[in-house]
Amino acid sequence: MNTVGFIGLGIMGGPMAANLVRAGYSVTGYDLAPGGVERLREAGGNAGGGVAEIVREADVLITMLPDSPQVEEVVLTPGGVLEHAKPGLLYIDMSTIRPDTSRRVAQAGAALGVRVLDAPVSGGEKGAIDGTLSIMVGGAADDFAAARQVLEVLGTTIVHVGPSGAGQTVKAANQLVVGGIYALVAEAIVLLEASEVDPRKGLDVLAGGLAGSRILDLKRETMIKREFRPGFRVDLHHKDMGIALAAAREAGVALPVTGLIAQLIAAARAQGHGSLDHSALLKVIERINR
Amino acid sequence: MNTVGFIGLGIMGGPMAANLVRAGYSVTGYDLAPGGVERLREAGGNAGGGVAEIVREADVLITMLPDSPQVEEVVLTPGGVLEHAKPGLLYIDMSTIRPDTSRRVAQAGAALGVRVLDAPVSGGEKGAIDGTLSIMVGGAADDFAAARQVLEVLGTTIVHVGPSGAGQTVKAANQLVVGGIYALVAEAIVLLEASEVDPRKGLDVLAGGLAGSRILDLKRETMIKREFRPGFRVDLHHKDMGIALAAAREAGVALPVTGLIAQLIAAARAQGHGSLDHSALLKVIERINR
Amino acid sequence: MNTVGFIGLGIMGGPMAANLVRAGYSVTGYDLAPGGVERLREAGGNAGGGVAEIVREADVLITMLPDSPQVEEVVLTPGGVLEHAKPGLLYIDMSTIRPDTSRRVAQAGAALGVRVLDAPVSGGEKGAIDGTLSIMVGGAADDFAAARQVLEVLGTTIVHVGPSGAGQTVKAANQLVVGGIYALVAEAIVLLEASEVDPRKGLDVLAGGLAGSRILDLKRETMIKREFRPGFRVDLHHKDMGIALAAAREAGVALPVTGLIAQLIAAARAQGHGSLDHSALLKVIERINR
Amino acid sequence: MNTVGFIGLGIMGGPMAANLVRAGYSVTGYDLAPGGVERLREAGGNAGGGVAEIVREADVLITMLPDSPQVEEVVLTPGGVLEHAKPGLLYIDMSTIRPDTSRRVAQAGAALGVRVLDAPVSGGEKGAIDGTLSIMVGGAADDFAAARQVLEVLGTTIVHVGPSGAGQTVKAANQLVVGGIYALVAEAIVLLEASEVDPRKGLDVLAGGLAGSRILDLKRETMIKREFRPGFRVDLHHKDMGIALAAAREAGVALPVTGLIAQLIAAARAQGHGSLDHSALLKVIERINR
Repeated sequence: MNTVGFIGLGIMGGPMAANLVRAGYSVTGYDLAPGGVERLREAGGNAGGGVAEIVREADVLITMLPDSPQVEEVVLTPGGVLEHAKPGLLYIDMSTIRPDTSRRVAQAGAALGVRVLDAPVSGGEKGAIDGTLSIMVGGAADDFAAARQVLEVLGTTIVHVGPSGAGQTVKAANQLVVGGIYALVAEAIVLLEASEVDPRKGLDVLAGGLAGSRILDLKRETMIKREFRPGFRVDLHHKDMGIALAAAREAGVALPVTGLIAQLIAAARAQGHGSLDHSALLKVIERINR
Repeated sequence: MNTVGFIGLGIMGGPMAANLVRAGYSVTGYDLAPGGVERLREAGGNAGGGVAEIVREADVLITMLPDSPQVEEVVLTPGGVLEHAKPGLLYIDMSTIRPDTSRRVAQAGAALGVRVLDAPVSGGEKGAIDGTLSIMVGGAADDFAAARQVLEVLGTTIVHVGPSGAGQTVKAANQLVVGGIYALVAEAIVLLEASEVDPRKGLDVLAGGLAGSRILDLKRETMIKREFRPGFRVDLHHKDMGIALAAAREAGVALPVTGLIAQLIAAARAQGHGSLDHSALLKVIERINR
Repeated sequence: MNTVGFIGLGIMGGPMAANLVRAGYSVTGYDLAPGGVERLREAGGNAGGGVAEIVREADVLITMLPDSPQVEEVVLTPGGVLEHAKPGLLYIDMSTIRPDTSRRVAQAGAALGVRVLDAPVSGGEKGAIDGTLSIMVGGAADDFAAARQVLEVLGTTIVHVGPSGAGQTVKAANQLVVGGIYALVAEAIVLLEASEVDPRKGLDVLAGGLAGSRILDLKRETMIKREFRPGFRVDLHHKDMGIALAAAREAGVALPVTGLIAQLIAAARAQGHGSLDHSALLKVIERINR
Repeated sequence: MNTVGFIGLGIMGGPMAANLVRAGYSVTGYDLAPGGVERLREAGGNAGGGVAEIVREADVLITMLPDSPQVEEVVLTPGGVLEHAKPGLLYIDMSTIRPDTSRRVAQAGAALGVRVLDAPVSGGEKGAIDGTLSIMVGGAADDFAAARQVLEVLGTTIVHVGPSGAGQTVKAANQLVVGGIYALVAEAIVLLEASEVDPRKGLDVLAGGLAGSRILDLKRETMIKREFRPGFRVDLHHKDMGIALAAAREAGVALPVTGLIAQLIAAARAQGHGSLDHSALLKVIERINR
C-alpha cells in the first residue's frame, strides 16, 4: 500500500498529494493542467504519463475532481480508471459529488474487483495544506480499514459513516446546514443594523447562547466588516447545493428550507459574487432590502 | 435600590424573584395566579396587594409577562405601572415582546421621569433557576449601569446592546437563528435517515466542522431519539417568531428565510406539538415526508 | 334606510360615498383630511360635524379606513362609533383589516344592539369610481339582506361568505393568491429572459393554458415593459400580507408559501417601490439576480 | 413529408401517433412496451422494427419520451437516431426535458444535417387524444415552418418561441407557474376552512377577481371535494420541477418561490401521492397543519 496514484492536483488535491509524499508514500500524480504536476514533482512526487499508467501501478488511487461529470468521465468511460484498474485496487474518490454517482462508481468497481470508497472532505484549502481535513467515508468497513492509514495523513477527523454514497450524503447534509446558517446570520445582521442595534454587540450575545455556532465564532467579524475573501467560494457552495437537492430527490425526501437556501446561494452567484467566500450570502440578504 | 417589585411570577419570573430574595433584596411580588405569590412568600419575599402598591414602594420594578398585550395592559393602561410610578423609578421589563412596544413603554416612562429598560433573557427555566440567564438590555447607558447589580443576580451574560427596544431586537434575532438551525438540523437528519446513513455518525461529523452549533452539541442526541421534553416550548417559539417578523416589518426589512421558518414553527403548533421542546421542528420536516 | 353616514373619504371611500349620493341616498361624511369632505359636498353630500353626530343620525353607517388600528380607534374607543350608535344601527366596515378585529367589533356591536358587517372590497380605485367592486361580506344573514341594497350601489359582485370576520378572511385569501401569482409570473419572466426567450411569446403560451390567470391577462404586457403605475400599491399589498399572516396565526394554520411571498413583497417596499403597482414584485425577483 | 416515424407510444405518444394516421400520414411507430405498437397498428399505423429502421425511412421523426436520459439514449448513443438519420431529416422531440439537453441534441443534429426542433406540449392526455395540445417550439424558423403542418394535427396552439431549447424553457416556466398556483390555492383553502368560512363561497369570489386563474376555474370544485384523479400526475410535475430548477441553474438565475414549490411537490410524492393529480398539492398543505 505504498504506491499512491493521485488524479486531480488542484487547490485541494495539490497539497493533499504533497502531504502524502511527505509522509513517505510514493505518489504519482496527474492533472489536465500542467502546473499541478509540476508542483508535485517539486514536492518529491512523480509525474504520471496519463490515467492508464497511474492506475496500473497504484496500490491506492485517489481522485480529487470538480464534480460528478468529471468523476464519471475519468472513472467510467473507456480508457478510464476502471478499465485499467487491477483487481484489488483501493480507489478513494475524495471529490464532492452526487451520492448516486458514488454508488454507481462503487458498483462498477465491485464488478471488476476494485474496492471503492467515497471520501469527500471539509476544511477547505487550509485543511488540505495542514492535513487537518474532516473526511466522511462511505463504503465497506474492510475497505475503510485498509484506507485509514492513508487518510490519516490527510485529515484529523476521519469517520466511516455508512455504505457507498454515505460519505457524499453526509457532505451534502453538512453543506445544507452551513449554507442555511450563513443565511440566518445574514438575516440577523440585516435586522440588527436596520434596527440601529450594533451588530457586533448583538452577535456577541447570540454567539454565547443557543444560537451559537462555528460560523458565528469564525465569521461574524468578517461578515460585519463585509470582508468576503475566500475561504470557500460561493461557486463551490452553489455546486454543493445542487448536490444536496439531487441527494434529496434521489432519497425521495422534500427539504423546504434547503430548497430556499439553494436559491439564495444561486442569487449570490447571479449577482456576480461567485468568487467570494460563501459568507457573502449576506450580500444577497442585503440586496433584497435595497 | 434595595426594594424590588416583581410582577409576573410564572415559570421564569418565580425563580428569578426568589434569586433576588436570596441575594438580599426585599422583593414584593404580584401575579394573577395565586400560586406564584405563595411560592415567593415561602422563599422569603412579600405578597404585594396589587400593581399600584408594588409600584409605589419599589426602587426597582421588574416585569416578566407573557407577551406585548400583557405588558401594555399592566404598564400603560389606567391603574397600571406608569400611573403609580414615582419619578426616578427604574423599571426593567424582562418579558420578550415586540421592540416597538418596548420603545413605546420607554417613551411613556420618560415623559413621567421613569427610567425604562427592556431586558429580555435567554437560557430558559434552568437559567432562571440557576441565575445563569443571558440578558440583552436596551435603554440608556446610565440606566443600564444602575440596573447592573440587580441583573447580575439573575444572569451571567449581561450585555447593553443599544437604546430602547434593542434588547428585544437582539432577542428576536436570537430566536430566528435558533429556529432556523433547528429546521436545518431536522432537514439534515431526514436526509441522512432516508439515505440509510446512521444520523448519529453523520451529525457527529457535522458537529465537528463548520456546520457545528450549540444546538448540534446539546440537542442532536435527543432529536435523533425523538425526545422532545421541554426545554423551551414550541408555543413560545411560535410567539417569538411573530415578534421577529413584527420587528422586521417595523424595521422595514424583508427576511425570506425567517418568513419560511416562522411557518414551519407554526406548523409544529398546528400539528399539536405546542407543548413540546422547539427541537420538535423535526416532527414537521418528518411529516412533510410521510 | 335612507340616511347613510360615511367615515373615511379617501381614494376609495370618496367615490363610494359619491356613488351613494348619486343613487339617491342622503349621505353625511367625515374624514380627518378636509379635502374628502369638500369633494363629498360638491357631489351633493353633507359634511358631518364629527363621528358622534354622523353616527347618531345614520340608519346605515359605513367606514372605509386604512387598517385595523384606525378601525379600533374610530369604533371602539370612548367617543367612537359604538358609544354613539343607536340600537338597530346597521354598521358596515368596508376597510381591509384583520379578521379578529372584525370579530371583536362585531361582538362589541352586538352587545349594544348594533348590527355589524365586515365587507372588504377588491377592484381598486377604478372599481370604487365605477361602482363595480367585489364585496366579500361577513356577518349575520339578516344583516347582509338589510345591507344588500346599499352594497349594490357600490359593487357588482356581492357575496355573503360567512359569519363575522369571514369577509376579511376571504379578502386575505384573495391577497395571498394575488401576491403569489405575481411572484410566479415574475420568476417565469426572469427565467425566460435569462434564457434568451422572448417573454411575450412565452407568456402568451402560458396565458392560453393551465398557467393562465387574470394577472397574466391584464398585467403581462406592462410587466414585460416594466410599467408599474398603480393600480394597487405595493404598500397596501404589504399591509394585506400582514393581515393574511395574522389571519393564519389566528386560525392556527401554517402557510409556507404565503410566508415567503410576504417577505418578497416586504422586499419590494424595502427597495423603495412602495408606491408602485404590486406587479413591481418583478423588480424584486430581478434584483435578486443582479 | 408524408412519412412519419414515431418513437414513444405511451399515454401521450399513442393517441398523438393515431391522430397523425387519421390525418393521412404514413406512421411507423416504436416503443419498448409492445402494447403501444399494437394499438398503433389497430389505428392504421405500422410497427417499426427498431430505431434504425424507423429513422432511415422517415421524412419526419417524432419522439415522445419520459425524460432527458431517455432522449439522450435514444438519440445520441451509438445505434441511436442521429447515427441512422439521413441529412435533411426533420426531427421533432416533443418530450419534456431539460433545455440544455435539447440544445445538445440540436447541435449534434446540426453537425449531421438533421433539423431538430424541441416541441414540448401541455394539455395532458385529453389534449393528446383530442388533438388540442398547446405546443411550444424551439428551433430555427425554417424548420418550424416545415413542421407546422404535422404539428397542427396534434395541437391547436402552436407557437414558435425561440431557438433550440426555448420550447423547453417555456414549458419549464409553465410548470413552475402551474405548481405555484396549486400551492397558493391550497393555502387559500386551508386558511378558509380553518377560519370556518365555506371554501366554495370564498373561492367563487377569488375566481371572479384578480386572483382568478384557469386552475381556480377548472379545479376548485375537485380540490374542495378532495378528488385527485389525474389529470396530470404529481410524479410528472415533480420531474418537471426538477427540469425548471435545472433550467434556472443553466440560465444562471435564482428563483426562490420555485425553489420552495419544488420541495412541496417533492413532499406530495414523498407522502405517496405520486399517482394523484397535481392538485393533490392540497394534501401537502393540509398535512403540514395536522
